[in-house]
Amino acid sequence: MLGNGVVGILSESVNKWERRAPLTPSHCARLLHSGRDKTGVSRIIVQPSTKRIHHDAMYEDVGCEISEDLSQCGLILGIKQPKLEMILPDRAYAFFSHTHKAQKENMPLLDKILAERVSLYDYELIVGDHGKRLLAFGKYAGRAGFIDFLRGLGQRYLSLGYSTPFLSLGASYMYTSLAAAKAAVISVGEEIATLGLPSGICPLVFVFTGSGNVSSGAQEIFKLLPHTFVDPSRLPELSGTAKDAAQPTRSSKRVFHVYGCVVTSKDMVQHKDSTRAFDKADYYAHPEHYNPVFHERIAPYASVIVNCMYWEKRFPRLLSTKQFQDLMRKGCKLIGISDITCDIGGSIEFVNQTTSIDSPFFRYDPVNDSYHHDMDGAGLICQAVDILPTEFAKEASQHFGDILSQFVGNLASTRDITKIPAHLTRACITHGGVLTRFSVTQT
Amino acid sequence: MLGNGVVGILSESVNKWERRAPLTPSHCARLLHSGRDKTGVSRIIVQPSTKRIHHDAMYEDVGCEISEDLSQCGLILGIKQPKLEMILPDRAYAFFSHTHKAQKENMPLLDKILAERVSLYDYELIVGDHGKRLLAFGKYAGRAGFIDFLRGLGQRYLSLGYSTPFLSLGASYMYTSLAAAKAAVISVGEEIATLGLPSGICPLVFVFTGSGNVSSGAQEIFKLLPHTFVDPSRLPELSGTAKDAAQPTRSSKRVFHVYGCVVTSKDMVQHKDSTRAFDKADYYAHPEHYNPVFHERIAPYASVIVNCMYWEKRFPRLLSTKQFQDLMRKGCKLIGISDITCDIGGSIEFVNQTTSIDSPFFRYDPVNDSYHHDMDGAGLICQAVDILPTEFAKEASQHFGDILSQFVGNLASTRDITKIPAHLTRACITHGGVLTRFSVTQT
Repeated sequence: MLGNGVVGILSESVNKWERRAPLTPSHCARLLHSGRDKTGVSRIIVQPSTKRIHHDAMYEDVGCEISEDLSQCGLILGIKQPKLEMILPDRAYAFFSHTHKAQKENMPLLDKILAERVSLYDYELIVGDHGKRLLAFGKYAGRAGFIDFLRGLGQRYLSLGYSTPFLSLGASYMYTSLAAAKAAVISVGEEIATLGLPSGICPLVFVFTGSGNVSSGAQEIFKLLPHTFVDPSRLPELSGTAKDAAQPTRSSKRVFHVYGCVVTSKDMVQHKDSTRAFDKADYYAHPEHYNPVFHERIAPYASVIVNCMYWEKRFPRLLSTKQFQDLMRKGCKLIGISDITCDIGGSIEFVNQTTSIDSPFFRYDPVNDSYHHDMDGAGLICQAVDILPTEFAKEASQHFGDILSQFVGNLASTRDITKIPAHLTRACITHGGVLTRFSVTQT
Repeated sequence: MLGNGVVGILSESVNKWERRAPLTPSHCARLLHSGRDKTGVSRIIVQPSTKRIHHDAMYEDVGCEISEDLSQCGLILGIKQPKLEMILPDRAYAFFSHTHKAQKENMPLLDKILAERVSLYDYELIVGDHGKRLLAFGKYAGRAGFIDFLRGLGQRYLSLGYSTPFLSLGASYMYTSLAAAKAAVISVGEEIATLGLPSGICPLVFVFTGSGNVSSGAQEIFKLLPHTFVDPSRLPELSGTAKDAAQPTRSSKRVFHVYGCVVTSKDMVQHKDSTRAFDKADYYAHPEHYNPVFHERIAPYASVIVNCMYWEKRFPRLLSTKQFQDLMRKGCKLIGISDITCDIGGSIEFVNQTTSIDSPFFRYDPVNDSYHHDMDGAGLICQAVDILPTEFAKEASQHFGDILSQFVGNLASTRDITKIPAHLTRACITHGGVLTRFSVTQT
């Protein structure tokens, strides 16, 4: 079957919200209509789904076959893993497997794949010449997550007694398209610009950590609001000025824009030898030589922390529970955490659980270190949804398939792993029942 | 103070979602700018609020005064009741008091009002010459409630494995205006018309009970979807035809519209003497002569029941718990109840609790008669929010104030209850510390 040019598309089964597809009907149309000689793909068989963002009929209309049975397919594609019992022997599979770091929870999957002599390609490992991942949803996570957070912010402010324009926003998935969602954020921005925000919640400062795809997606949405970006060094001054300005000349003063502040590692840590300037390469090599300073220099001035950065245990945390408790005791104005990286027990220590699209927030009360599932009461709100990009299933699938369709033919039409481009070979975790990446690491 | 022409507007304190106002800034402008001679209003003092849909500054801009202190006001207006300690002696108040049926939970309020020698006017009792209420939010309840229900329907269908266009809709309050919410429903309708609904959930039949303001508001939104109204008598036939049509010629069949069915009392009951035709006057006079038939003739064919009708205990229930349990055992397709009348333990027996705008649904599982607060699992979803019109706070306040502003001057500028129009006199529950309506009833 391997290399027979017949591609299968799985129905997704991991999460009820998964509505993405690795290839859209338009990608399938191009692959099928250009012919196998050109594309390497002769047939596409799609498992029926009543949840996929593109309906079965749309795949059928471009010449795909609809069938639960993928046994004729040499290459089977999913976004997430198939059910174990759906894994057919001696085929190639491509999906986000979360196995290449030997993640414990996915070892039964890897065992099954090895037992069935499957060749597994993991999207996460497909990197281009510059070492950057080719197939990634980070920007969509940033966009969807930030919109969802703004919606929750409206609800939280209402609980605190403030009606704000954020209340007029839905969650990302509640729009027919990314464009429609952005238009709604623009409307919210217009209300801020014309009707303003209550001075009691201003200056409203969004701190973004990191500068990758996730952060740029979140900032793309933020920039639709009337905003000013400030340098981290100016945060104390901003806070002071705004405080003066908020002295009511009349009781009904309003504020007509929001602030953004992008911080990177140089704003989060300081060398233990305070005479030494920050050096990123040195920090990455010797994080143990650095002390955390985010809780002193940034967090006291933030209304919202939008966490978009990569973090590993060897680095100091962005905000420990203890640091946050101290801050709250001193009366900091932090109202919420949008942990788009969804780094559980990671850079923000008290984010100890993932949340769902249905119920994207928990409330953390630092005074008694307690967690709640409502928006009322003390503490701050935290969002930690791990499947954000599916909220923009249509656009995320288009983006993904645009890239995947460029090399799906390579995977579909060859039996010989040495004959596919190197960047695909490197993404092969198992080949014919043999671990390829792990054995490389071990030699 | 009574009759001094100074009007106060309360900040609302009953529900965190209450963002409506009895008069908008534009109403206040007209009242103030025309002068007391013409309007009966000389000053308007507005309690500051960071939640009211119209900001304090907008009232200030048209000449209102912003102050917590309403002690100079002879007439004080709210939507809902003030806090007991805010009730000042010897003033006139107007709000929805829910006291005129001697509702037990509001008797402390009535006691306080009597003790302070307050004159209380209740909006609910202000009726025009034709006996219809002049000040009512029913249409807004219908609009807001039906949109909220459609949003929940999308979430429920996803839990059942179906992605539908309803998932692309927000709750009513998540739009900047009623017009924007309607535009979003129209977009959902366009998706139904072009991409269709999965045949597995069709025919999708919405049954509306009643024909008053609430029902017309809900139907106004429903009509934005591609729809057909069917007569109750045609429901069995529709269900049969659609079943045939759903026999898949191909697996990916879709359906491109929804059905509506409006039922009134003649469809809900039948005279015990089956030879007698339905007579509405006779039914209202002798409901005990009638048997319920809704559970046999309507409910088996409904996907959704939108309950918009007035009901009293002397009438048979629309659907008893026992009837519903029997229906579910036989495999009825009812997926949800939108109880916009919010008639707890009333016409639909198992609707035993109100829900909130934050969390508008509960799930009822008839098999074990259990109630849940999620969207996954067996049974059906029920919505029973009792403060729906505030979701369209801007438009609802405009509508309300358009009428109230026509006679607010009468209330503001007279001390003598016999000198105001009769329809206002009839709405007076207490006058100067004496019960007026109850004493009338008792004589």
